[in-house]
Amino acid sequence: MTATISAFSPVFDRVESQVRSYSRSFPKTFGKAQGATLFDKSGAAYTDFLAGCSTLNYGHNDPDLKAALMDYIASDGIAHGLDMFTDAKQAFLETFERVVLKPRGMDYKLQFTGPTGANAVEAAIKLARKVTGRTEIVAFTNGFHGVTLGALAATGNSGHRQGAGTALPGVSRAAFDGYFGPDIDTADMLDQQLSDPSSGFDAPAAFIVETVQGEGGLNAASPEWLKKIEAIARRHGALFIVDDIQAGCGRTGSFFSFEKMGLDPDIITMAKSLSGMGLPMALTLCKPAHDIWEPAEHNGTFRGNNHAFVTATAAIEKFWSDGAFEAEVATKARYLEDRLGAIAGTHGFTLRGRGMMRGIDTGSGAVAEAICRACFRQGLIIETSGGHDEIVKVLAPLTIGQAQWAAGLDILEMAFDEILGGHRAAAE
Amino acid sequence: MTATISAFSPVFDRVESQVRSYSRSFPKTFGKAQGATLFDKSGAAYTDFLAGCSTLNYGHNDPDLKAALMDYIASDGIAHGLDMFTDAKQAFLETFERVVLKPRGMDYKLQFTGPTGANAVEAAIKLARKVTGRTEIVAFTNGFHGVTLGALAATGNSGHRQGAGTALPGVSRAAFDGYFGPDIDTADMLDQQLSDPSSGFDAPAAFIVETVQGEGGLNAASPEWLKKIEAIARRHGALFIVDDIQAGCGRTGSFFSFEKMGLDPDIITMAKSLSGMGLPMALTLCKPAHDIWEPAEHNGTFRGNNHAFVTATAAIEKFWSDGAFEAEVATKARYLEDRLGAIAGTHGFTLRGRGMMRGIDTGSGAVAEAICRACFRQGLIIETSGGHDEIVKVLAPLTIGQAQWAAGLDILEMAFDEILGGHRAAAE
Amino acid sequence: MTATISAFSPVFDRVESQVRSYSRSFPKTFGKAQGATLFDKSGAAYTDFLAGCSTLNYGHNDPDLKAALMDYIASDGIAHGLDMFTDAKQAFLETFERVVLKPRGMDYKLQFTGPTGANAVEAAIKLARKVTGRTEIVAFTNGFHGVTLGALAATGNSGHRQGAGTALPGVSRAAFDGYFGPDIDTADMLDQQLSDPSSGFDAPAAFIVETVQGEGGLNAASPEWLKKIEAIARRHGALFIVDDIQAGCGRTGSFFSFEKMGLDPDIITMAKSLSGMGLPMALTLCKPAHDIWEPAEHNGTFRGNNHAFVTATAAIEKFWSDGAFEAEVATKARYLEDRLGAIAGTHGFTLRGRGMMRGIDTGSGAVAEAICRACFRQGLIIETSGGHDEIVKVLAPLTIGQAQWAAGLDILEMAFDEILGGHRAAAE
Amino acid sequence: MTATISAFSPVFDRVESQVRSYSRSFPKTFGKAQGATLFDKSGAAYTDFLAGCSTLNYGHNDPDLKAALMDYIASDGIAHGLDMFTDAKQAFLETFERVVLKPRGMDYKLQFTGPTGANAVEAAIKLARKVTGRTEIVAFTNGFHGVTLGALAATGNSGHRQGAGTALPGVSRAAFDGYFGPDIDTADMLDQQLSDPSSGFDAPAAFIVETVQGEGGLNAASPEWLKKIEAIARRHGALFIVDDIQAGCGRTGSFFSFEKMGLDPDIITMAKSLSGMGLPMALTLCKPAHDIWEPAEHNGTFRGNNHAFVTATAAIEKFWSDGAFEAEVATKARYLEDRLGAIAGTHGFTLRGRGMMRGIDTGSGAVAEAICRACFRQGLIIETSGGHDEIVKVLAPLTIGQAQWAAGLDILEMAFDEILGGHRAAAE
Repeated sequence: MTATISAFSPVFDRVESQVRSYSRSFPKTFGKAQGATLFDKSGAAYTDFLAGCSTLNYGHNDPDLKAALMDYIASDGIAHGLDMFTDAKQAFLETFERVVLKPRGMDYKLQFTGPTGANAVEAAIKLARKVTGRTEIVAFTNGFHGVTLGALAATGNSGHRQGAGTALPGVSRAAFDGYFGPDIDTADMLDQQLSDPSSGFDAPAAFIVETVQGEGGLNAASPEWLKKIEAIARRHGALFIVDDIQAGCGRTGSFFSFEKMGLDPDIITMAKSLSGMGLPMALTLCKPAHDIWEPAEHNGTFRGNNHAFVTATAAIEKFWSDGAFEAEVATKARYLEDRLGAIAGTHGFTLRGRGMMRGIDTGSGAVAEAICRACFRQGLIIETSGGHDEIVKVLAPLTIGQAQWAAGLDILEMAFDEILGGHRAAAE
Repeated sequence: MTATISAFSPVFDRVESQVRSYSRSFPKTFGKAQGATLFDKSGAAYTDFLAGCSTLNYGHNDPDLKAALMDYIASDGIAHGLDMFTDAKQAFLETFERVVLKPRGMDYKLQFTGPTGANAVEAAIKLARKVTGRTEIVAFTNGFHGVTLGALAATGNSGHRQGAGTALPGVSRAAFDGYFGPDIDTADMLDQQLSDPSSGFDAPAAFIVETVQGEGGLNAASPEWLKKIEAIARRHGALFIVDDIQAGCGRTGSFFSFEKMGLDPDIITMAKSLSGMGLPMALTLCKPAHDIWEPAEHNGTFRGNNHAFVTATAAIEKFWSDGAFEAEVATKARYLEDRLGAIAGTHGFTLRGRGMMRGIDTGSGAVAEAICRACFRQGLIIETSGGHDEIVKVLAPLTIGQAQWAAGLDILEMAFDEILGGHRAAAE
Repeated sequence: MTATISAFSPVFDRVESQVRSYSRSFPKTFGKAQGATLFDKSGAAYTDFLAGCSTLNYGHNDPDLKAALMDYIASDGIAHGLDMFTDAKQAFLETFERVVLKPRGMDYKLQFTGPTGANAVEAAIKLARKVTGRTEIVAFTNGFHGVTLGALAATGNSGHRQGAGTALPGVSRAAFDGYFGPDIDTADMLDQQLSDPSSGFDAPAAFIVETVQGEGGLNAASPEWLKKIEAIARRHGALFIVDDIQAGCGRTGSFFSFEKMGLDPDIITMAKSLSGMGLPMALTLCKPAHDIWEPAEHNGTFRGNNHAFVTATAAIEKFWSDGAFEAEVATKARYLEDRLGAIAGTHGFTLRGRGMMRGIDTGSGAVAEAICRACFRQGLIIETSGGHDEIVKVLAPLTIGQAQWAAGLDILEMAFDEILGGHRAAAE
Repeated sequence: MTATISAFSPVFDRVESQVRSYSRSFPKTFGKAQGATLFDKSGAAYTDFLAGCSTLNYGHNDPDLKAALMDYIASDGIAHGLDMFTDAKQAFLETFERVVLKPRGMDYKLQFTGPTGANAVEAAIKLARKVTGRTEIVAFTNGFHGVTLGALAATGNSGHRQGAGTALPGVSRAAFDGYFGPDIDTADMLDQQLSDPSSGFDAPAAFIVETVQGEGGLNAASPEWLKKIEAIARRHGALFIVDDIQAGCGRTGSFFSFEKMGLDPDIITMAKSLSGMGLPMALTLCKPAHDIWEPAEHNGTFRGNNHAFVTATAAIEKFWSDGAFEAEVATKARYLEDRLGAIAGTHGFTLRGRGMMRGIDTGSGAVAEAICRACFRQGLIIETSGGHDEIVKVLAPLTIGQAQWAAGLDILEMAFDEILGGHRAAAE
């Protein structure tokens, strides 16, 4: 353990709160980062299969995003302007409208909330309550929507919920797709409960759902289930909110995670990879008819992070102006499916997730943890997910080069073998 | 009005949510900014007496902060690393400990929450509930602590509270210093209520208080009242939380707003000017004994904004390593007090606030609004504050040069005269 | 309609609130009542298949109960003594212990709450929260536990819940036995949710369940399901509360509705037929180890209704000292099952409930309502139940004589035929 | 203590919950009661200055009320009929309208809630929320409104509130008349807070106030304060609810406690002495315009306690048909004021309360307790009140004969002297 201790400065233990978490899994001090590679103080390189929990879909310090940001700062571009009009915000709005909304036939108003996903969710829930005059929000098992009190109420994880120290009312819990096994249609169950005036379910303001549950275990809902859930929400007068904070921005293959499913959400929340370079930024999109906010009704100091507008604009132009990036991601996703499928098959595990948001359910938090630690010893940063931390989760930058992509997956495969003795088991 | 409409792009009306607010008061599109000056698209210059609601205490794009950030980005410094150890975080911790905590004899652990003040407040409230096993938070009239549900519960403003669309439980409301006039000691009232087992006040987990209420009307609590409130909190087993988000970072003259008052808060929340350049960053400081978080119990994607660490470190080094800046701010604050005192005297109004966080209570939201609009026509950006928006509030960068400082206050003085006919009234 | 209007005094419309309900279904003014018969002002007799929603299990004005009460009043027996010791309370405690608890091997402490079922439920929920230090209560679809805010939170009916006008937090809703059809084991579902740290279900203080849901549609849980639910509660550290307010006191055949099922509830709530004569009385029984109340922690003016103690004591002595009454009820219950089974069979409907708590699910609130109205025209008082009021519910006094029992069921059978044309349909 | 133990049966300790309270102060078993006298098992007589906490304003077993009830039962009058029309209810409505409402020029609808004061309060709060579409209820320091969750939220006492085991949201607490001493007008304070959009007070659905706080320490509000509070409620769109459960039915001299004050409550709650003989009964009166309940929206099994209707009707006829009783009570109240005033004067204490609802503030719970125990040794049943149980409270039956009245007060006077050595102190 001496080595570990000397790997980072004592100032962290002395001054930083015990609440810190990822630094416990990866006890190094990192300095530089480029693409899919992190470098620690000693210059050692690590491949990043965590990517800021899907915040770095375009990798670290993408050269074009970086250049755009440096130009902006060099020219004294405004960094902070509350929610005033700025050139940077205008460029983002125009680009988002032209490249993202218009080609998809989508018509939404953009609200820049405080620059965290939790804040985007808080705004979405508030707005749904205001629009419908109802209070209850239907959230799903294993959903993760953030840890501020309004967002936390919709979050399933008991560890985080206990942190609240107070009641978390206003949320009815429903079962996610497949929660009770393949034979039980949880959408029908929810519909029955909402249709039954004596079920104890109050008329909801909204449903909030992730298409793939990132923190909750890489559970991917089927398009059919999502369509049904959307229809049920509509039938019961509730808004349909897609929380696309982790699954959006290309992580599942397309800009929004729900494209080509025929869904038409009332509200969409975005954050994480939106700024493209890891800068704090969040966005709540709503149908124009729902944009009934009073000025400043939901406000905050950092609603307009102009540096993030600059990098977000550059990212959207670079990656989403044509179909090249989407095709590239599809190729990588197929490769990932093949590689992970093979590993899962070797060890009798189940593959989870969709697109570049994939994991292997090892059935045990201890096993998944051991595998991630083994990877880190080989220079691969990777983390667990799920209610029991039982899923080994791959969230590589979408821009990762093929050689590094393959090498990282090799490390992962070997770690499974090391921990589980899998290759031998399979060979015998 | 034609001019106004042509002053900004139609994309804002078309795509941005109606929730936007400051852009309504200052309907220009801003591009560059330097020091205390904002420039709109046409190149016109505006003096900034709003300073991002105290987020830009060191002005826009301070050259040293800007240089530090550009160097960092140029060298591929890590931008986003969740809450992993980074060089940038280490430098910030060491600098904050050495320059801020040690010389003041303060011993605190630092929690990097999601990068908004509301998130720092949510973390503070959660922690106080966890430490005490109690739920109720005592918050004060006119307090403003943010708009996520946990923070909003502690916020007084009814417009924001109505936006919640649900109950905001867990907060007992007490009267701020002077709320019921100079003859009523509101601290004694609170003590009586908490000492009375039949008053309906439940035993509180914490008190949360601003020393100067920025949004609530620039009400400055006296040191005596704050000492008394702290003692009452302790006597009743509650933690004492100072929300220093708006009043901290030099705004009232010292780094913390409560220095030299003999206060010893259990928890302190910071945000706004902490990063020094307007980048999103927030911090919850707690006494080491209270640092009982489980790892990741309060988490979030953007807990470590490394760009902000870089600029925050540079700002603390530049402005707080010795007493020069503090002395400079004191001089400016005295000048401000003289100038505003004269204006207030001319028109029979009351001066509010403390240090460089000052305002004039015009007694009327319409009058204050008219004065601010008159200032903007003369190139001065300034806003209102208070429950009825009746206070004209001066929040200039602390680094503003004397000539611009005087010129801005001249505009303000003339605006009072223009709207209220004051000079003539005083001359007669 | 003239006849209807003249059937009761205009003072009701003029002075009584619109909240009144049963007087709308049975628009007569009743005066006297004896056994299973009610008499209106004109002297017309009605057979009572409603029995005060199971409050009059021993019929109206049972002669022995009536005599005991008149003796008590005549001798100036204390009527109201708060919760002081009285002869009447002592006799009740001794009798309840000797006749009810001891022979069943049950060891419970008795708490006399305010004399309503809702109050007994409020006390049970409070106590469970105090014992466990947890907040959440698991209640079931279609459960009915009363309309005060604490009890209402556990009640499923949306009409009543909307009456709250505020949030009803602290309850997690689970599906009752058979709610999702015969193939889905709802107990397993609940166990899965409580075992999953990411399901969004918080660790519960208690489960509260009715063995037969009286208001919710005469859904009878199987003994196996109840055993499983009890075990799940225990496994997750929750108390197991049986709400026996409607199903207890012999309604399902035995004194408690859960006898001979091998259940061992932590808390039992009773009310309705407890006093035996329809006088307000309620009781919360808890295991001695859970009796951790502070004196007066749950109080109320009418905790000791001494008149009700007198009649309750007489009722327990008369009906439960030996097995004769239980045998008589079993005979009547079999007869009821035969008769209702035949009616249900004729019309293709489903029989619901258990013991003397039975109903026919007509699938339609309008049909059930029409049948009840047809019955009333023939002198039979009977009501609907269920989320859509679709169940015709038979809750006759358990003491009804065979001739009246048969005649009442004849009226019911004819009403089904009249409304549904059933006999002809069956004959063809 | 041997004597005490033998004074009551071990069945109480063995079977009754520890929550019992008054039996701890008066450890005897009572059997009969007549007028102002209780008799224990041994035949010993006790004068009752507790009167069921104002439930027995007409004494125990008033012969006329008793006769009416016995006649009713003898003739098989209906005891329980849910909320159906009955002769007994009709007679009560007609009598209440003719004797109580009409002569006072009052126009109200009567809702028979579950037969407890808490239930009447729950109904009042629900209705106010339904009428206004708002949630918040303003309740006052030291207010007591019951212990079901909705009622408990409005209750001030911390012991009872802690019993809730969950959040009690939806209530804003204001200071009662005189709470902060004679120089501070708490009504003005409340008006300021409600008029201030930034005070943190949400727009309220209702104010709920007792004119004299029975449990909270016999604090009597002045008519001027009550008028002002009513006007403030109206000005802010809130309903004005008078909780007259303890102070009503003649306790302060008139039928309602607020007569001749010019008040016009929107809602009035009654219980305790309403039935006249201590039988459970409660009533929520509302202005006809507010009677917007859906049928059964607030329901309950024991809404119509017909025995209580009979005794309540007899009580209203006997005591309120003319002014004789009111005059008699006024005489007794003056005598009480003289006697208690003398005792208070002797010992330097303060007199509290109004009418026949009076007490002496001893400033110490221990002293007040000792005095009450000394009284009980002399055959006088009397209790404490107030947040610290520091008030010795006199709540004698209003019908008490002069000799017993004087003798009881003699015992009280001697007990003060015994405990405090007062006579000697005064004599020296």
